[in-house]
Amino acid sequence: MTDFHFSTPLGRSRARAFGISFDGEPGTFNAITDVPGVGVGYTTLISGDGPLEVGRGPVRTGVTAILPRPLSTIADPCYAGFFSGNGNGELTGIHLIEEVGVFSLPITITNTHSLGVARDATLKWVAANRPEALASAWGLPVAGETYDGFLNDINGHHLTEAHVFAALDGATSGPIEEGSVGGGTGMSTFDFKAGSGTASRRVAWAGKTFTLGVFVQSNFGERRNLMIRGRRVGAELAAPQITQTTPRAEKSSIIAVIATDAPLLPHQLKRLARRVPFGIAWTGGLGYNSSGDIFLAFSTANSQAAAGRAGQLASLVAIPDGDIDPFFEATVQAVEEAILNALVANADMTGRDGNFVPALPHDWLAATFGRAG
Amino acid sequence: MTDFHFSTPLGRSRARAFGISFDGEPGTFNAITDVPGVGVGYTTLISGDGPLEVGRGPVRTGVTAILPRPLSTIADPCYAGFFSGNGNGELTGIHLIEEVGVFSLPITITNTHSLGVARDATLKWVAANRPEALASAWGLPVAGETYDGFLNDINGHHLTEAHVFAALDGATSGPIEEGSVGGGTGMSTFDFKAGSGTASRRVAWAGKTFTLGVFVQSNFGERRNLMIRGRRVGAELAAPQITQTTPRAEKSSIIAVIATDAPLLPHQLKRLARRVPFGIAWTGGLGYNSSGDIFLAFSTANSQAAAGRAGQLASLVAIPDGDIDPFFEATVQAVEEAILNALVANADMTGRDGNFVPALPHDWLAATFGRAG
Amino acid sequence: MTDFHFSTPLGRSRARAFGISFDGEPGTFNAITDVPGVGVGYTTLISGDGPLEVGRGPVRTGVTAILPRPLSTIADPCYAGFFSGNGNGELTGIHLIEEVGVFSLPITITNTHSLGVARDATLKWVAANRPEALASAWGLPVAGETYDGFLNDINGHHLTEAHVFAALDGATSGPIEEGSVGGGTGMSTFDFKAGSGTASRRVAWAGKTFTLGVFVQSNFGERRNLMIRGRRVGAELAAPQITQTTPRAEKSSIIAVIATDAPLLPHQLKRLARRVPFGIAWTGGLGYNSSGDIFLAFSTANSQAAAGRAGQLASLVAIPDGDIDPFFEATVQAVEEAILNALVANADMTGRDGNFVPALPHDWLAATFGRAG
Amino acid sequence: MTDFHFSTPLGRSRARAFGISFDGEPGTFNAITDVPGVGVGYTTLISGDGPLEVGRGPVRTGVTAILPRPLSTIADPCYAGFFSGNGNGELTGIHLIEEVGVFSLPITITNTHSLGVARDATLKWVAANRPEALASAWGLPVAGETYDGFLNDINGHHLTEAHVFAALDGATSGPIEEGSVGGGTGMSTFDFKAGSGTASRRVAWAGKTFTLGVFVQSNFGERRNLMIRGRRVGAELAAPQITQTTPRAEKSSIIAVIATDAPLLPHQLKRLARRVPFGIAWTGGLGYNSSGDIFLAFSTANSQAAAGRAGQLASLVAIPDGDIDPFFEATVQAVEEAILNALVANADMTGRDGNFVPALPHDWLAATFGRAG
Repeated sequence: MTDFHFSTPLGRSRARAFGISFDGEPGTFNAITDVPGVGVGYTTLISGDGPLEVGRGPVRTGVTAILPRPLSTIADPCYAGFFSGNGNGELTGIHLIEEVGVFSLPITITNTHSLGVARDATLKWVAANRPEALASAWGLPVAGETYDGFLNDINGHHLTEAHVFAALDGATSGPIEEGSVGGGTGMSTFDFKAGSGTASRRVAWAGKTFTLGVFVQSNFGERRNLMIRGRRVGAELAAPQITQTTPRAEKSSIIAVIATDAPLLPHQLKRLARRVPFGIAWTGGLGYNSSGDIFLAFSTANSQAAAGRAGQLASLVAIPDGDIDPFFEATVQAVEEAILNALVANADMTGRDGNFVPALPHDWLAATFGRAG
Repeated sequence: MTDFHFSTPLGRSRARAFGISFDGEPGTFNAITDVPGVGVGYTTLISGDGPLEVGRGPVRTGVTAILPRPLSTIADPCYAGFFSGNGNGELTGIHLIEEVGVFSLPITITNTHSLGVARDATLKWVAANRPEALASAWGLPVAGETYDGFLNDINGHHLTEAHVFAALDGATSGPIEEGSVGGGTGMSTFDFKAGSGTASRRVAWAGKTFTLGVFVQSNFGERRNLMIRGRRVGAELAAPQITQTTPRAEKSSIIAVIATDAPLLPHQLKRLARRVPFGIAWTGGLGYNSSGDIFLAFSTANSQAAAGRAGQLASLVAIPDGDIDPFFEATVQAVEEAILNALVANADMTGRDGNFVPALPHDWLAATFGRAG
Repeated sequence: MTDFHFSTPLGRSRARAFGISFDGEPGTFNAITDVPGVGVGYTTLISGDGPLEVGRGPVRTGVTAILPRPLSTIADPCYAGFFSGNGNGELTGIHLIEEVGVFSLPITITNTHSLGVARDATLKWVAANRPEALASAWGLPVAGETYDGFLNDINGHHLTEAHVFAALDGATSGPIEEGSVGGGTGMSTFDFKAGSGTASRRVAWAGKTFTLGVFVQSNFGERRNLMIRGRRVGAELAAPQITQTTPRAEKSSIIAVIATDAPLLPHQLKRLARRVPFGIAWTGGLGYNSSGDIFLAFSTANSQAAAGRAGQLASLVAIPDGDIDPFFEATVQAVEEAILNALVANADMTGRDGNFVPALPHDWLAATFGRAG
Repeated sequence: MTDFHFSTPLGRSRARAFGISFDGEPGTFNAITDVPGVGVGYTTLISGDGPLEVGRGPVRTGVTAILPRPLSTIADPCYAGFFSGNGNGELTGIHLIEEVGVFSLPITITNTHSLGVARDATLKWVAANRPEALASAWGLPVAGETYDGFLNDINGHHLTEAHVFAALDGATSGPIEEGSVGGGTGMSTFDFKAGSGTASRRVAWAGKTFTLGVFVQSNFGERRNLMIRGRRVGAELAAPQITQTTPRAEKSSIIAVIATDAPLLPHQLKRLARRVPFGIAWTGGLGYNSSGDIFLAFSTANSQAAAGRAGQLASLVAIPDGDIDPFFEATVQAVEEAILNALVANADMTGRDGNFVPALPHDWLAATFGRAG
């Protein structure tokens, strides 16, 4: 089972496979899906090669669905908080989160120009699968994005609602794939191929063990800044045999989703979201101007209280703020590892107009950090 | 020309037609389109009657497009600020506005479950009409919503991208229609039929005259609270011959867009947005829990500075904060009048399942406030 | 007992004494002290006449102490939220409130330039009276201010820590004085003498009755805008016999403190604070540039949870957000009445340099609104 | 001159003296005072030994004054922005900064329980030295704090207004002392003696060179987390011969002040402030619950525009947001170095009740990083 700490379901190596050590203790799958009830599904769209023809391709995109709860309770609100570290991006649903500290329904993450279809399709999917949830009420789904236009025909709007339904339908618990899958398909980080990444931490508190999982759609950073466990490796990775990357100007963004089964209140979940930049900093990121760095944290606990019932006092439990530091640490640790997983569990990709993004070289990783097992 | 202060282009009476007096001096059209360069377009969808069949109808919805600049400069950013008075709703694009104080591209407002199509279609429309704007960059359009599911088959998702293109293509300056048009088609306020409303004010400052215009998609409030120019008329309007309104639970929301040609900085535009609740208060609203009360203010001035040019200092001008009070007053006044215009320039509507929303009775208005001219 | 709805302990008429009717049902004292355990104390400093001599006077200032809990539990945190409607002022303690939704220790309100002494003296008073609270921890007291320099020698810094101790020691429950007392001594509103005001509302919910009380230090507005229960009376009150007010430029601010025994979470208390502008709007205020309009709401419930205990899950109860509207209404109603009480329970005042601020004329009030009883 | 990169005016070694290399190019003094017009002054209070007697001592505290402009223009507002990374602390003046993006008058930083005297004394000092600034207006000074109660008799309130005046009077440009001076006197970081630290960076842009300087009052972190240029040295520093530190529970906070002569608008300065956590992350901090991590950034440019003149358009210049990344990098780099300087330029300290905090051992630094020159 712990193989999943070293490789993805499809057998891609994860960061730990190269002997990179991290702080803290991961969960079974070292994934956001270690949080009970949380599911992840992907639709990955890769087709075509050569020059960009808007509407024809090449296509390098997709959509990721994160179900905060099983379908049977998907309309039950979760307590949540968010933080925009650098707001050059989009994450919907946040006005309600800021106001009353909740969201419900699945989260989707895709490319910048397809966020709308992902959002609305989520409502259609809920109406089809849980019709009572939207019979006489509205939904305000959380949908996020990062930009894949360097590799993908983003203005071709290739993502359809059928693709979104497929990701939602396919959401599962257990180990999940990483790298160029789902919404992360066309994404890069530190000018290496990146995309979807995840990690989790167990947090012991007062005789109990909670789980905190992180999922990132990672698409930020300049190569010269890359840092791995304190080693500023960006400069050495700029060597010619590595930097055949097609030059590019834009360098954005990162969406991070933090899930936990620990009972945390909305203001506490916002505090978790505000810890994401510390994890990004450990990889060398610092939130460049063009980056959309937006972070969401939610708790699966207290579901009855978050929903509320008219005329009844809601009863909640919460970790005291004075005891929250281990959850902060888990967040920072899991963000760092999730970003590196998105970089490691990957391969070179050529996209529209021949634009090329290399993977973080595995031989360099092995030479530099060794190899586990 | 000043006829437009009293009636809409289609001849519907506006609030001033009933002798209701307001503070301040309106612009030529008493509309957001008094701000030079600002255009408004609507697509209105009304079809079917009888019981709700999801996907069939009845349909009572639409979309409103607000172009902050003419098409030729639609990709030039505007300085902007926003405020969420009560965040039970959605307005996209706000992370960027909060971060760098700008947005670009048209604004759309529609029903809650069609916001995504309005947002993405805006990107397609820009790519088609101003392809250079999105050739190697992303767009983060502003799209807002209120809920029309009491009258409309909202889960039928009847709004298509063609409808959005039509509203964008049809955006014009000059006098604009109000009431049950565009995104406001299926909306109510104080349990009377409402929807789209607008008003403007001239603001004299230092020998110059600026214009500030407000557009609302108004869909909030309980009848008992309705206040018109200080008169608490909600109680008397609850009389049986008026209150044949179908009972309903939900009571939301209001999107307000403030445009001005006055040179105001992002933080100043946020200040304008924060004055919207004062105008709402004058009509009897107070931001109920279920309301999505989200407000955007933008300035058409300083376009070169807001866009910025690499390697060049941006040069801006700004009204001093010490002189901003007349702009605050204009905002409050225009918000109050725009809401009342949305209520007055309207007619009864029956929607899905026979749900009925009466118009604010014109005979009562005439008896209570008189009639102008 | 209900006499206190009509007059203050010292016999000053309150707004209801003039037949002004308000929405909602007030508590026994129609004061923030109707919330069990909340105490208010004042130190009022009035001395000297004639030209300003900095450090000599004339003195027209003071300090108000609001104890959120009895002394025996004064160090127990209260859940709280705040909103800065217009931030041209100071309220300390808000970083912690924003972060973890709590504050503890007494609140003080004074003039702008003496806020520091009020804040630090509060810590000394706590250290003297509840030494265990600060033996190995810090305190971050809430201290607020408005500007009284039109009447008071504000740069003379006449408020001492002894004055602050006296207000803290004198805090009591029961009916409390209003008008030119405590921190409100030198304050004006709509260019009439104002200062301290209070009101409360009973809120029935699910078979229980909660109390919500408001205290304002009111010091804002231009006379022409004054509105009383929808009547725009500002213009008529500008008549010469009334407007002998010494002309002045500055026009600021209002601090509002909302207390309730209803179990509300931090995000819900922030929502209450965001409703204060609606009550201000009903009196004709709109948050001018120079105004420091900062609002705090706190709940005395859930004291054990807000404090937290290491290693123990906190257990809380909360009103569902879906049921919060009556608390919003109570807030708006009590803010409106508290401001008018500050104006009505007052008398003319002449301060430094002969600067004169008239009271809202009681004969005009009687002629306009009648007189109760 | 470049000696000041290696040692303080009193000859204490700075981080660079131990061969620790940093990114970016520092200014002449590698201090916030490299920004033209910015001055720093300290009052340091060290007296007494042995058991704590509240009011008697031992005293280990002080106050730091940062003048954003020379005295002659000290009342001219500066554009500013702030960010509360973790709000378990106090920084006054921020409501105005949030509202209109300015502050004026000197900044003071001291211990938690003396913030009030520092704030009010600043007003007295301005009234005495620039009486026109407060003759008919109010001041809202920025005052910050961190907690020194582990070493200092904090409830003895030993800081007087005379001490604050002395720091203000003594503010100078040029090289400034670091470590246990001023407000930093009783502070610790990663359980080593810390306090005041500073650093600066030159930022080349479009043929010009701007300066960005950082000042920290550093008082945060757990030893096990200490990281120096990527080396996680916390564990090795926990060795017995080093960890004779008296055990303690509390672990807070950090105030950071960023100054620049680059023309940046309020929203851009807020963006700088939001980059401080990245610099903290590089030293191993992550914003523990008990930490008050509050950051202020200001620009000395555009002074006429920030002040504003009634009836005149303000004219400003600004770096485009698209060019802001080098300023982000400079901020992160200078924050990292300022914190390490506060740790390095220090010595062991014993305070109240014999509580002992060791300095970061210089022999360990030399053995680990070498020694410059």
